[in-house]
Amino acid sequence: METKYPLLNTIDYPSDLRKLPKTQLKQVCEELRRYIIEELANNPGHLASSLGVVELTVALHYVFDTPNDRIVWDVGHQAYGHKILTGRRTQFKTNRKFKGLSGFPNPKESSYDAFVAGHASNSVSAALGMSVGVRKMNVDSKVVAVIGDGAMTGGLAFEGLNNACVNPNNMLIILNDNNMAIDKPVGGLSEYLTNITTSALYNRWRFKGYHLLRKMGLMNDKKRNRFLRTANSIKNAASGTHNIFEGLNIRYFGQVDGHDVLQLVKVLTDIKNFDGPRVLHIKTIKGKGLVPAEVAPTIWHAPGKFNPETGERILSQSSASLYQDVFGETLLELARSNEKMVGITPAMPTGCSMNIMMDEMPDRVFDVGIAEAHAVTFSAGLAKAGMMPVCNIYSSFMQRAYDQIIHDVALQNLDMVLCLDRAGLVGADGPTHHGAFDIAYLRCIPNLTIASPLNEAELRNMLYTAQLPKKGTFVIRYPRGCGEGVDWKDQPFEEIPIGKAVCLQEGTDVAVLAFGPIGNEAMRAVKSQCKPSAETSSLDYAEAQPDFMSEANKVGIYNMRFVKPLDEETLHHICKTYKRIITVEDGVLQGGFGSAILEFMADNGYSLPIKRIGIPNQFVEHGSPAELYHMLGMDAEGIAKAIEG
Amino acid sequence: METKYPLLNTIDYPSDLRKLPKTQLKQVCEELRRYIIEELANNPGHLASSLGVVELTVALHYVFDTPNDRIVWDVGHQAYGHKILTGRRTQFKTNRKFKGLSGFPNPKESSYDAFVAGHASNSVSAALGMSVGVRKMNVDSKVVAVIGDGAMTGGLAFEGLNNACVNPNNMLIILNDNNMAIDKPVGGLSEYLTNITTSALYNRWRFKGYHLLRKMGLMNDKKRNRFLRTANSIKNAASGTHNIFEGLNIRYFGQVDGHDVLQLVKVLTDIKNFDGPRVLHIKTIKGKGLVPAEVAPTIWHAPGKFNPETGERILSQSSASLYQDVFGETLLELARSNEKMVGITPAMPTGCSMNIMMDEMPDRVFDVGIAEAHAVTFSAGLAKAGMMPVCNIYSSFMQRAYDQIIHDVALQNLDMVLCLDRAGLVGADGPTHHGAFDIAYLRCIPNLTIASPLNEAELRNMLYTAQLPKKGTFVIRYPRGCGEGVDWKDQPFEEIPIGKAVCLQEGTDVAVLAFGPIGNEAMRAVKSQCKPSAETSSLDYAEAQPDFMSEANKVGIYNMRFVKPLDEETLHHICKTYKRIITVEDGVLQGGFGSAILEFMADNGYSLPIKRIGIPNQFVEHGSPAELYHMLGMDAEGIAKAIEG
Repeated sequence: METKYPLLNTIDYPSDLRKLPKTQLKQVCEELRRYIIEELANNPGHLASSLGVVELTVALHYVFDTPNDRIVWDVGHQAYGHKILTGRRTQFKTNRKFKGLSGFPNPKESSYDAFVAGHASNSVSAALGMSVGVRKMNVDSKVVAVIGDGAMTGGLAFEGLNNACVNPNNMLIILNDNNMAIDKPVGGLSEYLTNITTSALYNRWRFKGYHLLRKMGLMNDKKRNRFLRTANSIKNAASGTHNIFEGLNIRYFGQVDGHDVLQLVKVLTDIKNFDGPRVLHIKTIKGKGLVPAEVAPTIWHAPGKFNPETGERILSQSSASLYQDVFGETLLELARSNEKMVGITPAMPTGCSMNIMMDEMPDRVFDVGIAEAHAVTFSAGLAKAGMMPVCNIYSSFMQRAYDQIIHDVALQNLDMVLCLDRAGLVGADGPTHHGAFDIAYLRCIPNLTIASPLNEAELRNMLYTAQLPKKGTFVIRYPRGCGEGVDWKDQPFEEIPIGKAVCLQEGTDVAVLAFGPIGNEAMRAVKSQCKPSAETSSLDYAEAQPDFMSEANKVGIYNMRFVKPLDEETLHHICKTYKRIITVEDGVLQGGFGSAILEFMADNGYSLPIKRIGIPNQFVEHGSPAELYHMLGMDAEGIAKAIEG
Repeated sequence: METKYPLLNTIDYPSDLRKLPKTQLKQVCEELRRYIIEELANNPGHLASSLGVVELTVALHYVFDTPNDRIVWDVGHQAYGHKILTGRRTQFKTNRKFKGLSGFPNPKESSYDAFVAGHASNSVSAALGMSVGVRKMNVDSKVVAVIGDGAMTGGLAFEGLNNACVNPNNMLIILNDNNMAIDKPVGGLSEYLTNITTSALYNRWRFKGYHLLRKMGLMNDKKRNRFLRTANSIKNAASGTHNIFEGLNIRYFGQVDGHDVLQLVKVLTDIKNFDGPRVLHIKTIKGKGLVPAEVAPTIWHAPGKFNPETGERILSQSSASLYQDVFGETLLELARSNEKMVGITPAMPTGCSMNIMMDEMPDRVFDVGIAEAHAVTFSAGLAKAGMMPVCNIYSSFMQRAYDQIIHDVALQNLDMVLCLDRAGLVGADGPTHHGAFDIAYLRCIPNLTIASPLNEAELRNMLYTAQLPKKGTFVIRYPRGCGEGVDWKDQPFEEIPIGKAVCLQEGTDVAVLAFGPIGNEAMRAVKSQCKPSAETSSLDYAEAQPDFMSEANKVGIYNMRFVKPLDEETLHHICKTYKRIITVEDGVLQGGFGSAILEFMADNGYSLPIKRIGIPNQFVEHGSPAELYHMLGMDAEGIAKAIEG
């Protein structure tokens, strides 16, 4: 190991990096890039983004006085290099592991992590607040936001840009243009950024002119500012583009080759002391340095394990389908016969498997870029025009479209489908990505139908049901990862009665009421109680059912299917029949599914004891789903304990 | 009446308008403007915006085939003229009244109202969805979005613009530039829109050139498009501005005088059949036609009653302070001694009375424009820099910043204050503006402290407490309108213990647990039971208390103050002492305050009967607060009934 990273091993903190002569920075970059590749080959994570910003990371820490100067990484999965250079090189082996390093910048983890960064597009607003704040507090601290072209399409980023010129600050925005959101860039802005390349020649001229004047001793700081500002009006004519940033009174510099570390150091040094908000537009290649990743950055966004020499991915095969693929394939199947159906995704066609429909019907899938709020209101507009939109957004990202669900969708009671992929605990991505809140934040909205399937087959039939005429706004939430391995492909579609629960097993004493796939844990819990020694890890419900039924057990299990509307008939039956109730949900306990059951009971005068199992009111850290669910008592073992009482 | 509006009275629907010769349109505008002024003088509403778009409204309905063609009004309070011309002239007397016309476009009310419009910035996304949708459905329908310059700063509008060029559509965006959000324009975009005026000369040339060519017979539709597109690159050089819309591949036309109805008709006719997304930039004066409103459009945004001849406002005086003024004055008072304190508002300084601090400390209040998400993340950045931000956003608009509260604030457990003005039912503004959901959507978020005051004095002390060091993220919700008339000014500040309730009256049988000012209704309810004939409308609690105490009554009343954290000690006492519980809250019942009490009871094994009073799970229509609260059983009478059991 020692000989492999001779320079990197000497850099524990950026202060070590800053001691090196510029001439060694290229080697630092080479070693850092190799280190990231080697580590991620064995311990999977977000690869391509971090490879793209190796030179930028080195240059930023070389030029700026971190952590006194603050770097705000937008969508933090580009920050691996940053972590390695800021005191966490040896810990990096624990990246994304339970109790290990977080996969995103995390102020709790390091003072070098200036702000939380899991959701895209927040860096400009956060950095602007800091930049205005430090000036008001008379603190000498520079603030840099690093934002990708994909994240720049988010409305929050625009709101930040629009506000950047209003209050005194010297925020530097690095626009990391890799021509790529998680999937691919969409929208006017991306086309705009491509066009702006034509101005590169002009910008080179501008910098040359500036340096010439400086060499001649004709340039001081004030003059420098004036020169660069005046020059912009020339650029306007020269570039033939409409510079959005300049239009918003933010000085624009670029483009710069983001893989030329010496040029980056030079430019950053040049502009770091300027006053006022600035954009530096750099051009990078996502996945830079690993050929397969450069060619297919979407696949290599988070590739899993791979061979660091050959770049061959080591794929683990699961027998069960991913929930996202059940969604994606069913969507296409339904769209073939329902010509009103269209798909809408904010930059996640691959992540939610809407790319399956996109391949066959490119003109019926809308990837609107990182723009969740727009995705929902745009879908509402499509519904108003008579179409049947299916809008798929990860649960934690749907938080960005909360008002749009209330104001633009539910209030008009539109016939459309909202799918929340990645609902519940997502595992290694941690607290920014857990889909913990959606049951609580959606359940209070009138007019919605909110469902969650027990397994793949039920997801398929829920999607079928949701797109039938006059079903109103139909929400389906389902988790990340694999299903239960039940048959679902090519099965005939079956309409699911809205607001009807299914009894999986009748009982007498304890009723377990489950919402969503976590109901399978409840079944495993009961099975483990019946046969304590059984291996229950990959239980197939169809196989297990005879076991359940053969026991004269006291536990009833109900797959509630809907948290809204509730199956009141079944609930009356349960409250009259059983002695105790346990609710099980993959969401936060405050206001969630269990609370809905409490509300039913209170409103109807039932008073049996109830134990609610779900996510406690805390931000849950990262780790494997199994570790997290076990920690929170939400796995079969935890449920079994609750059943024992 | 007949003689006053000779033309307007003949227009029941736009089809009647379209029968008139162009030469009569000016008179239609005059009559329509007068009609709006006369009606609003007696029946208050949003005046200034609707006066500004009189000519645009007439021109749109004259040129477009509404309702087959669709007009999407952004922030619907500009749509009064639209309502009057589309079948609702005589009904307009009931505007904003209980069971009367809605103050905003409402598809349930009329097929001419194409989309819901209460919150700003949704029109572009909604219109884009419709425009793409009708084309896919092979329906010949044109879609027009009318959006103000203030609403254009919202991130959702930008997300819509960014997406406008991607899919085939012919959406027309009318940018109604009145240099004004509800307060005043802020940010780069507004400066940009001012600068773009310099291009007016060029645009005039472009249109002249086009018409010249057309007269010469050298212009057909295809050529016209090419001409206008090519001409844009000339404009780029000519205007000296960076055209954001052109940068996003949206064709830009403007500026046009928005008060010249004939020019508007001409331009709209010229561009209505063009293909592809377009922006028409018109310049209007908010409040046009009523001099005081033109001079002070912020005050005349919704002026209340006034004399239609003299423009003199008829102000009703209340003895009690507005909650917003208690906030505004206390904020300033605290800021005088806490130099870290800063105020942040998204375009509502007057509405939330932050203008009081702004007047004295202009550099410590940030009006970020219509940009709720940015307001919260920007505040988080300020907090990170060591300041104490107080961010005030109306409850229903805070829905726009939901993810930012979770991801950028609560996850980092930042010391800052979020104030939700207009929480609960707001009255005449109706379902888009009711602050019904915040208790439910905030309660599930970890790390937050969520409080609501009983009255003015408690609001003052809560704000004082919230800005003390190390209080974490402190949320205070309070309603629109006047308080209870209790003394609060110049009172010494008192720290409120976090998570502690106050017993207003001990009892034995029924415990009424109230969250927020609605607790005063509970007290009135008890008083009405004690002395059935008493006049209870303006009860002063201090006076009433002796009455309560003198009765050997069975009802206990608790001012809970906090929904998070709950006062568990007091709740244990209540559950052990009383026979029944009634919860009272000014929010939706699903997941709200009452549910929090249910959760406490279930988790601690209590099973006494509980009745929850609050907003049922429906979108509540508009009306006076008194009418609405009475309808929902949330006033003293309703609570008294619940106490009777």
